[in-house]
Amino acid sequence: MRVELVTIGDELLLGDTVNGNAAWIGRRLAEHGLEVTRSVVVGDELDVIIEAVTEALARADAVITTGGLGPTYDDLTRDALAKAAGAALVRDPGLERRLRERVAAAGRELQPMALRMADVPDGAGILVNSAGSAAGLRVELEGGAVYALPGVPFEMRTMIDEVVLPELAGEHRVARRTLRTALLWESVVATRLAPVEAMDGIKLAYLPDSPEVRIRISATGPDVEARLAEAERQARELLGDAVYGTGEETLDRVVHGLLAERSATVAAAESLTGGLIGAELTRMPGSSATFAGGIVAYATALKEQLLGVPADLLEAHGAVHPDVAAAMAVGVRERLGATYGVAVTGVAGPDAQDGRPVGTIFVGVASPGGEPRVASPSLPVSGTSPENRAVIRRMTVAHALEQLRRVILGLGTGPAQKE
Amino acid sequence: MRVELVTIGDELLLGDTVNGNAAWIGRRLAEHGLEVTRSVVVGDELDVIIEAVTEALARADAVITTGGLGPTYDDLTRDALAKAAGAALVRDPGLERRLRERVAAAGRELQPMALRMADVPDGAGILVNSAGSAAGLRVELEGGAVYALPGVPFEMRTMIDEVVLPELAGEHRVARRTLRTALLWESVVATRLAPVEAMDGIKLAYLPDSPEVRIRISATGPDVEARLAEAERQARELLGDAVYGTGEETLDRVVHGLLAERSATVAAAESLTGGLIGAELTRMPGSSATFAGGIVAYATALKEQLLGVPADLLEAHGAVHPDVAAAMAVGVRERLGATYGVAVTGVAGPDAQDGRPVGTIFVGVASPGGEPRVASPSLPVSGTSPENRAVIRRMTVAHALEQLRRVILGLGTGPAQKE
Repeated sequence: MRVELVTIGDELLLGDTVNGNAAWIGRRLAEHGLEVTRSVVVGDELDVIIEAVTEALARADAVITTGGLGPTYDDLTRDALAKAAGAALVRDPGLERRLRERVAAAGRELQPMALRMADVPDGAGILVNSAGSAAGLRVELEGGAVYALPGVPFEMRTMIDEVVLPELAGEHRVARRTLRTALLWESVVATRLAPVEAMDGIKLAYLPDSPEVRIRISATGPDVEARLAEAERQARELLGDAVYGTGEETLDRVVHGLLAERSATVAAAESLTGGLIGAELTRMPGSSATFAGGIVAYATALKEQLLGVPADLLEAHGAVHPDVAAAMAVGVRERLGATYGVAVTGVAGPDAQDGRPVGTIFVGVASPGGEPRVASPSLPVSGTSPENRAVIRRMTVAHALEQLRRVILGLGTGPAQKE
Repeated sequence: MRVELVTIGDELLLGDTVNGNAAWIGRRLAEHGLEVTRSVVVGDELDVIIEAVTEALARADAVITTGGLGPTYDDLTRDALAKAAGAALVRDPGLERRLRERVAAAGRELQPMALRMADVPDGAGILVNSAGSAAGLRVELEGGAVYALPGVPFEMRTMIDEVVLPELAGEHRVARRTLRTALLWESVVATRLAPVEAMDGIKLAYLPDSPEVRIRISATGPDVEARLAEAERQARELLGDAVYGTGEETLDRVVHGLLAERSATVAAAESLTGGLIGAELTRMPGSSATFAGGIVAYATALKEQLLGVPADLLEAHGAVHPDVAAAMAVGVRERLGATYGVAVTGVAGPDAQDGRPVGTIFVGVASPGGEPRVASPSLPVSGTSPENRAVIRRMTVAHALEQLRRVILGLGTGPAQKE
């Protein structure tokens, strides 16, 4: 079963919005053994939408569109599908009633424009949207079915799960597994995995996102599950403790799981990351069992006041120093009464700070009994792009979580550290 | 000048990676008056890449590809462009030398596989990558030029700015402006702006991202700049204080600017957002001038210990209560010595808390002199999707920043509040 995506909206071409919908749909369909073979973005133009949908159906078995189902006049998907099907747009009484009820329940007045969301190409199937106002459509065209979904992510996602997948889900012919690693360079991973790459019916893909590399193992042919298991076994042996999880087991989930197993908690002391570590550690539902809280000591003076970092240390070396990271970790652990404390200090840029270049970071981890441990990861950042700041902050969060994982498991600081 | 994008990589189709590159390129080209008219994602398959590039060049004047220039065997862009051009791949001595130098400088050994990054289709132009290892390529095919760039975002971005834009930048024929609003529903915005929509040569597009709606005004025809200015003037008059900025002026930048003008600072007390508000307020370079720090009191007991929220208040009402939001804002402002304090408490889900349903949030803002103010925004979230948690957290951050903006400017809490 080959599926193509057509995501619709000038905002996507202009880059006002990132196409997270396409990524999410690709992932979800892959989980169900369906393959997205191409993904196209087109603007809010009637004829271009018709052309893209028609071309996609010539190659694929089904097409999913997102966007263009809202109430405003740049929402053209309904019109495009009606024209492609040679059908008129008709107002659906059930949809109109539902719209009026939703608006009334919110104590609002219905804008006449909103009634466009009750129009459907004559003969099209209506896909219930339990999460929002705009219904989806199923339109049968020459070549296959088009599933038109709204662009609002949580509405689209609900409808994929509740409506589209139950209709499309086919049988697996490819088995896939993703291994997640941290602290190894992509070329090191690829070189180590050469023997797995050479296995019959096995294909590897590398997805670097420093300091992480995900490796997607795809198996085809007879006994795909056994092949995949053997490839995974060999890959794990070759990569060792750099493998921290599989599939959707992101670092925050893995750390949450490790802490939960031990009935332990963590507190975060942040500087350049401004709160991102705490945000990451609270993504998971149930994170209140493992995350106590955090202190963002952005101003240097607050590192002393809120975390007890010795003033003479800050005076002698500035805020970006391994001993400061250690003291922050110890301070936040003690003051928030957590099992572990994790702390970062560093220079996100664009300017150097305290004589340290942009990209310098120190990660401290404090644990029950014993000295705090500090890692000094080497970040692959060069040049003076203003984008670097966001990249450095994101990498710092991953290094903090990975160092916390390594301390919990009794592992060393690992590769990719500065000398 | 029409440009199409071909972004390459199984990881994009499978959704392991979100296509942020396409969004960024669309935005950057639009800023320079260039139009991305279509964007296609294809997997790591030689013939599919060739087909997509060829089709794109048949419609557009130039094609930009990203991805597939790395060292591993699933990196096929070089091979595809060589085949499309009918040229052999040859090793470039200058690129090889540069690769060897970079690796030596990092104190590493060159993996033989990495040398693939020195191969170029015979006759192709080499695009310097000042931010990383993989060079880009300019290949002239029938129909126009293909610019092949690496998929690593900060490398790709650097090369767009340093290499591609200087070559492609054409003259403006469309003038665009984006107004950013908060707290108004999309249909309310669209209804109010009907008179602007009716203006000659003016097109409006709505980009909702609750609680924000961006409105992109496009002007065409003679005197585009004057038309655009008049449309913007009328739109601002119709939307009033809901307009908080234009273009790339995100809420965090606007708040940073307002604070900086007043030599004022803010401190954040967070609960359900786990640090996201602090992270947002420190995205900007220079944010240390306006952001003092934050306290993430995730565990309820820490709201008393770290922020001084009265214990009897927490006992009587739980952590999700307007008075708790007010006390958190006052507490963080005082303890961190900031001009303003902003605080949030609420229920991100998936389960209700303290008898409050998922999606309940309270935003407190404390300022110099006067009582703290609490807003209770109504979030358009329904259903029980596990995605809701992330959506609620993101909306909460935007409401916190918007309420802070409104307090700084002396505005009321605005629409979209619960009764």
